[in-house]
Amino acid sequence: MTSSRDALSIAQALLRCPSVTPADAGALGVLETLLKDAGFTTHRVTFSEPGAADIDNLYARIGDGAPHLCFAGHTDVVPPGDADAWSHGAFSGDVEGGLLYGRGAVDMKGGIACAVAAVLDHLAAHGGRPKGSISFLITGDEEDVAVNGTVKLLQWAADRGETFDHCIVGEPSNVEAIGDTIKIGRRGSQSGVLIVDGLQGHVAYPHRASNPVPDIAALITALNDEPLDQGSAQFQPSNLEFTSVDVGNPATNVIPAQARAKFNIRFNDHHTQDSLKALIEQRLAAACGNRIRARIEWLPSNADVFVTKPGNFTDLVTASIADVTGRTPDLNTGGGTSDARFIAKYCPVVEFGLVGQTMHQIDERTPVADLDQLTAIYRGVLERYFKS
Amino acid sequence: MTSSRDALSIAQALLRCPSVTPADAGALGVLETLLKDAGFTTHRVTFSEPGAADIDNLYARIGDGAPHLCFAGHTDVVPPGDADAWSHGAFSGDVEGGLLYGRGAVDMKGGIACAVAAVLDHLAAHGGRPKGSISFLITGDEEDVAVNGTVKLLQWAADRGETFDHCIVGEPSNVEAIGDTIKIGRRGSQSGVLIVDGLQGHVAYPHRASNPVPDIAALITALNDEPLDQGSAQFQPSNLEFTSVDVGNPATNVIPAQARAKFNIRFNDHHTQDSLKALIEQRLAAACGNRIRARIEWLPSNADVFVTKPGNFTDLVTASIADVTGRTPDLNTGGGTSDARFIAKYCPVVEFGLVGQTMHQIDERTPVADLDQLTAIYRGVLERYFKS
Repeated sequence: MTSSRDALSIAQALLRCPSVTPADAGALGVLETLLKDAGFTTHRVTFSEPGAADIDNLYARIGDGAPHLCFAGHTDVVPPGDADAWSHGAFSGDVEGGLLYGRGAVDMKGGIACAVAAVLDHLAAHGGRPKGSISFLITGDEEDVAVNGTVKLLQWAADRGETFDHCIVGEPSNVEAIGDTIKIGRRGSQSGVLIVDGLQGHVAYPHRASNPVPDIAALITALNDEPLDQGSAQFQPSNLEFTSVDVGNPATNVIPAQARAKFNIRFNDHHTQDSLKALIEQRLAAACGNRIRARIEWLPSNADVFVTKPGNFTDLVTASIADVTGRTPDLNTGGGTSDARFIAKYCPVVEFGLVGQTMHQIDERTPVADLDQLTAIYRGVLERYFKS
Repeated sequence: MTSSRDALSIAQALLRCPSVTPADAGALGVLETLLKDAGFTTHRVTFSEPGAADIDNLYARIGDGAPHLCFAGHTDVVPPGDADAWSHGAFSGDVEGGLLYGRGAVDMKGGIACAVAAVLDHLAAHGGRPKGSISFLITGDEEDVAVNGTVKLLQWAADRGETFDHCIVGEPSNVEAIGDTIKIGRRGSQSGVLIVDGLQGHVAYPHRASNPVPDIAALITALNDEPLDQGSAQFQPSNLEFTSVDVGNPATNVIPAQARAKFNIRFNDHHTQDSLKALIEQRLAAACGNRIRARIEWLPSNADVFVTKPGNFTDLVTASIADVTGRTPDLNTGGGTSDARFIAKYCPVVEFGLVGQTMHQIDERTPVADLDQLTAIYRGVLERYFKS
């Protein structure tokens, strides 16, 4: 193994590409070259969407049999913010005091680098071919609109007849230390706007008007107070949050005609998007009675709930983690959404990568030791997965 | 009496001045000429305020003894709105089918015209001088900011040693027909902004944030639900209306840091501005408990509650109304605020004028017969007031 194929070197090469979403800045090329050299068949696929930037994506596969393990991720990063506030250049890939600095160090160029390094190690140790198939599914469109990335790349692969048995997304799943957390699912996300119609009038004549403000307050309280569920085996309780309530009435002497409140629901596997909407509509109708005129405009959502139930695959990842770190990871489903929700429609997927503490922050960084541990964990996963 | 001195002619002359607030467009000059010709001493007084238009005002008085009866009003009008929607020009003063059309026909050039016509008749019938004093206190700044009008003109008059015994404001007090309503008072008005501070965060991690939206909803409900009082002898119950609630959070995945709700209170003679604020602050503190961080920013208010208690003066006006119309007026304190609130600090004041149905609307209009009746009522008031 040359020095350019260890995780730190690969991570540095990636970090030095200023691939602030939607720019690629050469990041996918770094990976493509490494994988092609190792015998992967690679595809660069560009997707377009009106109103969004064209996005370059990379799909690379080695082997043609089952089982097929896919490593998925993204090389785009969020902007560095105040560049002067960084102690090391946001795109320097500097190492100091055992820490690798750079935007994307943990989210998630570091994770991808470990996966590539582990796969190259694994292939080198097994005559250059896996007992099955290994693929990389890497997008440059995750951090912003995410319309020309994983969703379309999965569909493109399916159209080519690609099938996946399992997938690992190298997102920074760990909270405090490498090995503390595997994400095995994510809650779904559904947003809506609650609209209450009243009757405009003068505040001095409230009996001639119908004020939607106290009505929407009552509905916010009603919808907010009753739990959506008590949680499930793998999930915390679903949660509805009102994120805004707006009337925009500048006149102190006018009762407004309408009030609107925005809300977002993070929902667990007790619900589907449809059953959730039906539940909320039903509660709203009950809270309105015959008096309040209210309705909900649901916003489009591509964030369904998903979970990879604990079983052979999660056991295998857990065993590899325990082997390297001595830790038993929490099988967690908390937090926001990720591209794993798209992959879950094709195969079981877990998210396991670096420690997320500094993600999206100034001085995003990872201990180099974490890169070594994560590479070793991925190596262990590969050994176990293809040991047959 | 010449035709130019009857109420209809005076009203038409006023309506043909497009005195959309703050413009005068010659309206005060019409009155000043008529009053000066009848022996009044007249003053044109211009007031200024940074950020507001300079406003012309008229004070005219005849006689120098007591009692002193003042007719007060304003010659400015609200804009005509869609001029093409009027069936007769908004500043035409056209009469058709017994109806006089024009912006200000009822609010309140028509009322002023009747008062001037009645006073000129009264003086003509009594040798040109009242048994006491009659004055006109007319502003061009009532419909908009009202900072360079009645408030300052009253102070100006007081500084000159002018004292008033009673005042009639010719605002359109009647609801359905001439004589149905005298306004003997008005509720006070006090506005404020309720501000709730939370802690911003990501909707996926609500336990790390504190959402001010459900909190402000609870406070709106708490402050809105409990009556401020049960009304008083002359007043309906005080009323609090929330006129807006705003967060302005565009992000569906962010719990906001602050929510604000605007409210307006119309309060009766159970309260002063200070006692009212103390009551609301106390109820807010109770609703917040130790949990919700909320405060109120009170907006400046010059609208105190006032009432002219039923007695000799209201009896006199009531008798004049009954004489002309056969109706017994309701002594009412409902509705919005008016310049009468400023006059009430100097002398007892009632509001009695035309029928308000079309005020501020397209095709504002009054029956010519109402002008005749209102003139006759004012004539009756003058006879009774100065009969001694």
